[in-house]
Order: sequence, then C-alpha cells, then structure tokens
Amino acid sequence: MRSVKIGLMGLGTVGSGVVRILEHHREDLEKQVGSPIEIAKILVRDPGKERQIDVDRELLTDDPRHVLDHPEIDVVVEVMGGIDPARRYILEALERGKHVVTANKDLMAVHGPEILDLAARKSCDVFYEASVAGGIPIIRTLTESFSSDRITKIMGIVNGTTNYILSKMSRENADYATALREAQQLGYAEADPTSDVEGLDAARKMAILATLGFRTFVSLEDVDVRGITRVTPEDIRYANRLGYEIKLLGVAERFDDAISVAVQPTMISKTHPLSTVGGVFNAVYVYGEAVGETMFYGPGAGSLPTATSVVADLVAVVRNMKLGVNGRRMFSPYRQKKLLSADRIVSRYFLLLNVDDRAGVLARITQVFADFEVSLESVVQQPDAGGSVAEIVIVTHEASKAAMEGVVGRLRELPVVRRVKSVYRVEG
Amino acid sequence: MRSVKIGLMGLGTVGSGVVRILEHHREDLEKQVGSPIEIAKILVRDPGKERQIDVDRELLTDDPRHVLDHPEIDVVVEVMGGIDPARRYILEALERGKHVVTANKDLMAVHGPEILDLAARKSCDVFYEASVAGGIPIIRTLTESFSSDRITKIMGIVNGTTNYILSKMSRENADYATALREAQQLGYAEADPTSDVEGLDAARKMAILATLGFRTFVSLEDVDVRGITRVTPEDIRYANRLGYEIKLLGVAERFDDAISVAVQPTMISKTHPLSTVGGVFNAVYVYGEAVGETMFYGPGAGSLPTATSVVADLVAVVRNMKLGVNGRRMFSPYRQKKLLSADRIVSRYFLLLNVDDRAGVLARITQVFADFEVSLESVVQQPDAGGSVAEIVIVTHEASKAAMEGVVGRLRELPVVRRVKSVYRVEG
Repeated sequence: MRSVKIGLMGLGTVGSGVVRILEHHREDLEKQVGSPIEIAKILVRDPGKERQIDVDRELLTDDPRHVLDHPEIDVVVEVMGGIDPARRYILEALERGKHVVTANKDLMAVHGPEILDLAARKSCDVFYEASVAGGIPIIRTLTESFSSDRITKIMGIVNGTTNYILSKMSRENADYATALREAQQLGYAEADPTSDVEGLDAARKMAILATLGFRTFVSLEDVDVRGITRVTPEDIRYANRLGYEIKLLGVAERFDDAISVAVQPTMISKTHPLSTVGGVFNAVYVYGEAVGETMFYGPGAGSLPTATSVVADLVAVVRNMKLGVNGRRMFSPYRQKKLLSADRIVSRYFLLLNVDDRAGVLARITQVFADFEVSLESVVQQPDAGGSVAEIVIVTHEASKAAMEGVVGRLRELPVVRRVKSVYRVEG
Repeated sequence: MRSVKIGLMGLGTVGSGVVRILEHHREDLEKQVGSPIEIAKILVRDPGKERQIDVDRELLTDDPRHVLDHPEIDVVVEVMGGIDPARRYILEALERGKHVVTANKDLMAVHGPEILDLAARKSCDVFYEASVAGGIPIIRTLTESFSSDRITKIMGIVNGTTNYILSKMSRENADYATALREAQQLGYAEADPTSDVEGLDAARKMAILATLGFRTFVSLEDVDVRGITRVTPEDIRYANRLGYEIKLLGVAERFDDAISVAVQPTMISKTHPLSTVGGVFNAVYVYGEAVGETMFYGPGAGSLPTATSVVADLVAVVRNMKLGVNGRRMFSPYRQKKLLSADRIVSRYFLLLNVDDRAGVLARITQVFADFEVSLESVVQQPDAGGSVAEIVIVTHEASKAAMEGVVGRLRELPVVRRVKSVYRVEG
C-alpha cells in the first residue's frame, strides 16, 4: 500500500521528537496502520542550521509552499507554536484537503472553532491531543471515554513550569525569585516566563479542557486568571501547617447548565491525589456524575512525551484515511454557553491578615464574615514578633466568590486591618 | 433517524447502572451519536423479581432467544459475567451480525481471541473497556493514545477487594482475617472471596492489559499468580518502616521482545504514585519508551463507574454504525509471544527470616546471596523477644527471579535458618 506522507512544520523540541518516534517505532506503526508513514518535507526557519537530530537535509525547507503545495502530503503536522503564521498554514492546509495534527494550545484555545469548522466542511481531521498536558491523553479521554457521562468538575495541574517552581518553594522553602531562577537555569522556564507564571498558558489549556468536558465553547476570555508571582514562602508554610499544598490549579466547574473556569494558586488538601503531583509533571482530575473521581497523570511537556501524543493523533488520522471517515469523528460543542455568576461559584477560602494587636479586633473581623453570611471553619490569631501587629489565619466553610469579594473589600476598609496579605481558594 | 436498539443481558449491579445512564443522559447521548439509544429487551434470570431500579416490566425476559433472535437489536450488551452461557450468547450475537459490548473480564481473558476473530469476520464491533479497572479508560488509552509508543511496563492495582483489605491492614494494623471480614460486611468482598484474594481476578485483567500493551496475546496461563492470604501485619509493619506499602500489584514487563506478567503482593515505595492508591480505587501505571511515566486512577468497580465505560463503548459502536466502519477499528495482536525466562525477570526483593541467634549466622546467610551473585542493599538483624531466635530483614539490589529462587531454596536448607517467613518483590 502506498505510504502516507506528512509535512512537518517545525523541528524544535516537539518536532525532533516526532522525527525520532516515526523512526524508532517505524515497524510498529506500519503494523498498526497498514502502510508506512513518511516525512515528505520539514519546514524550518534555517535549513542550514546545525541540528541535534539526524535528519535528511533534502527534506528541510524554509518555504511553507513546499509543504502546502506538495501534492502528495496527506497530513500536516504543525509543531511550530504561536498563533501566526501557524493559523494561516493550518487553514490553508485544510483548504487543500490536508489533515492536520497540531500541538498548538495557543491556537486551539483562541481559533479552535474557526479551524474545526473549516475541517468539518472539508472532511478533514484536526487532532490536537498534544496541546494539553503533553503525554497525558486527556483530550481523547474527555471526548470518547467519558462520552457517556456528565462531567461536573475538571481540575488540572497543566503547567509544568509553575508546578516546578511551587514544588521547589514548598520542598526547600525557597522564595519565588530563587525558584524561578533555578527553573530557568534547568530550561523549565523561559527567559521571559510571563505566559507561564501569570497563568496564561494554563488558562489556554483549561479553556480547551472545559470546552471538551462541558461540550460548550469556552474562550480564553471566560477564564478567570491569577498567576503565582505573589505566592510567598510564608503562604506555603501556613498551607503546609494546615495540611495543604499550594498548586497553580485550573478549576472548571458546572452547576446545572452554567459553568465557570478559573486558574489560580489554590490550596489543595494533602489527602487529594493532585497534591502529590510534583515537579514538571502534570495531572488532570475529572469528576463525572456517573464515574465519580478519576485522575490522569504524566509528563506535561518534553520532546518525546509530547511527540507521543502527536504521533498517536497521526495514527488516528491514518486509520480514518483507510476507512474513509476523516472529518467525521471530531468533537463539536453543542451546548449554549452560560457562565456561573459570582454568587454561584462556591468554595472554601484561606485568608492571611495583618491586624492591630488589641482587644476586640477579632470580633470586628469575624463580624465582617457574618455580615456576608460566610461561616468560618477556623480562626487562629498569633501575635507578631513586632508587638503591635497580630497575624490572623482564617479558613472559611463554603462561601460564594461574590460573598468573599464582599468580605475582602470590607476588610480592606477596616481601620484595624493593616493588610489583607493573602487570599486562596481551598480544594479537596 | 431511527433509534439504535440494544439488548441488555443481565440486570445486576452493572446492568442497572447501564439502564440509569441511558435514562439520565438520554439527551446528551442522542446529541453525540445522532439518534436515540433504546433498550429493546433485558435478559434476566427471574422477570418476576422485585428490583431496585425502575424498569419497564415488558422489557424483561428470561429467554435469551428474545434478545438473540430479535430482528431490530443492533447491539448486545453483556453484563451477566461468567464464562458460560455468556460466551455462547456473545458468539451467537456476532454470528447474527449484532455488535457486542461486554464487561466480562473472565471471558475476554480466556476466550478473547475466539470472540475477536469472529467479530472481525462478521464486521462487528466487540468492545470491553469495562472489563478492566471499571471506570478507568485504560483499554482505549493503551490501544489508541499509546499506539505511537513502545510500552515496556504496566503496573496495575486492578482489584478493589484486595486493595481495600491491604489498605485496611496497613492503616489500622488489622490482620488479614479481620480485614477480609469487614470487606465482606461492606459488600466489597464476596462470601467466597477466592477469585479476588488469590489474585485470579487481577491476573485476568493483567492478561488483557498485557495483550493490549505488548500487542501479543497473553493468556491467563502466562501469568504468575500469588494472592494476599499470607500477608501478615508484621510484613506490613516492616514495609512501612522501610518506606513501602504492600499492594497486590500486577506487573507486566517487556525486555526486547520477551515479556513477563505476574500478580503478587509487592512492596512499593511510598514515593511511587501507585502507593497512595487506597481503598477500593484502582490505578494503572504505564511506562512507555517515549512517553515515560503515566498513571490512570479511578473507581475500579461499582454500578455507575463500570456502566460509564460500558455506555462509552456503546457510543463508540453507534458512531461506527453511522460511519459504516464496525469491526474495522479493533485491536488485534500482531507480535509473536515470547516469555521472559526467570533469569531475565529482574527486580529488588525483601526477605524476612527467622534464624538462630548466634555468632556467624549472618555470614552464612549473606554467603548464600553471594553464591547466587545477588548483592544486598541492607541487612538488619534484631534479636527476638524469645532469646535464641533472631529476625533478619534483607533488601536486595536488583536480582533475577531465577537467582532469588536459588537463594530461597538454599536458605530453606540451611540448618541455622529456622524459617523463611516472607519474600516480596520490591518496586519503585
């Protein structure tokens, strides 16, 4: 049978992994799909550059036309990253009837509907398992394995950089700047770490997961995002003492037909399986009405893990080609989107306050919570070394986001409150 | 579009869950597959029996012909369990061109090839996600998501009953009989617990996982099985002290082209993600050459979790029906089976010995390990309360199964060794 030809766009970390897997697992792949898979062209910025990977120089090109106009290329594998020109290339590939496999979370989170619509019209496949949580097959799990269930909660540690930083801060009591510097030295964080540490990368991935899990299109603007740059060693010490870890957690929830998606540093109980996910690993916890609690754990990034997902998608495309059913098995959201209002987003909260150290202060503060009908699980007051300032640690019972915004606003106005130092959502 | 009609065989725990999910998620399911899914007949032993679940009495029948001969039934969902008559019914359903979804691990582990062969000849689907680890979609993960990788190790906690018993023994320092009795009272263990506690249930599931992961047919006879009936509170105390949990672990491994599959109580490091899987939960750890470490965690049994997998398979069958590709997407093993010989199955080991408490004994014992070229990680000797007997705890470095069999045989012959109390494989 004739070989299936692919055009690879990008030969960086993930692209090199794709080349390696296609080479190392050639025989197995051929057995599984019934024909050889061959790379016909590789788009790179500089074909003359020295490369770590052994690849036929003849395949390299810096001209996208050599991929897009190539008459024999069946599948375009886009692993360049970034919105443009990746978006243009993908749309053009689809226009020409080429299937697409991509690892591009930025693109799928923002332009997913446009790309998937065109693919459906052209009877082409677009698969993007590698765009979320690298080697963890969470997209296929949500769309196929849990097709029978109604998913009500998805919690994800989906950014390895921030998980590395927070794990290091927790384990070694390091401060944020030190942990970030080490992550940069090890290559786990980029020179400009903004997208990771401000939670944007995680927000894109959560938008994709919420779209698939809740079957409604969730855009990046729907995600409430807060990064980890203000997490302090003190916060982590308090968390540990109370039996929690602080993780940058994506939380997507559904009540009735309304949803909410947020990414924020969150205290998660050490008894929860997500709390043990350390270093650059990722994990996604899924709660379904019927299935209950499940969790999927694995490498969130890296050359070969991410390429494993890319090539598994490629196998799916080729199997569909053999059956003539491309473009027919793709997920499309069918629910109206309705966002939960702030009074219906409910969780427990942790607060750390600096207050005047004198009689009656605690009564004033707890009254604020009472005014907003937020009940408290624990309140611990400890005099500071300083003398005139006390530190108060509060953990609430379940309270709405709206009520907590009211509480925090009012606390900030109270003369006896010197500073609202930290507020964290609490899970597990 | 005309509705898809299913014949349900069995209305016990899983069958009732299937009825509930088809009812509760009716609208979502219809949106996903494009037509209603209806139950046309339900085979039960006693149609007159009182039932927990609200079901149209007209659907119930005790005559399998009413399902198998029903001209409109497209899919038979077999959730009766047991080898016969389930095997006969499934084969006959396939002969008549009906697709099959089953939760039957006993059947698939023993008669899988026969059933899958017939299905392929008849262009019918046979899916069995629910047969291993209930709500965890591990079968789809191994066959689709890791199609691109070469899996070299699968470790599974795939029997909830034994995991409950061992978790209880570890947490409460209970003995085996007490923990078993409680599991029985809670309905986690059957009146005759043999199949669970002797490891047979886990062995069937590991045979299925190894078949899928290694792409070669692994039969039940290939699995080396030891149950948990001889695990003592003392073993667990020693394990905990050394930083391990004891779990009934299925371990399937591949070196080059040879494989081995075993189910046995195993000491697993508390730093390994599998060690935290408690109670009736299941988890499967998969190591792939490219993807590295992954783990899939969730409920291993129960009505709705297992039914989630059954109905997800049903959705897959119906999607295939719409595309006209049934029987074309099934996994079939393509590798020659080659079992690893005992000198190539390697791991660390824990041993607990009672020996004479006198000078020179330790030298004699360690000499036995040296004779078989097994090197030791630690040896701890402690005098017993009794006086003349000492207890020796040994942890080895990596050693072959053959060498360890040699060591244990020789130790048993040594006059200074009163008893080889326990031998465990050590993982993680």
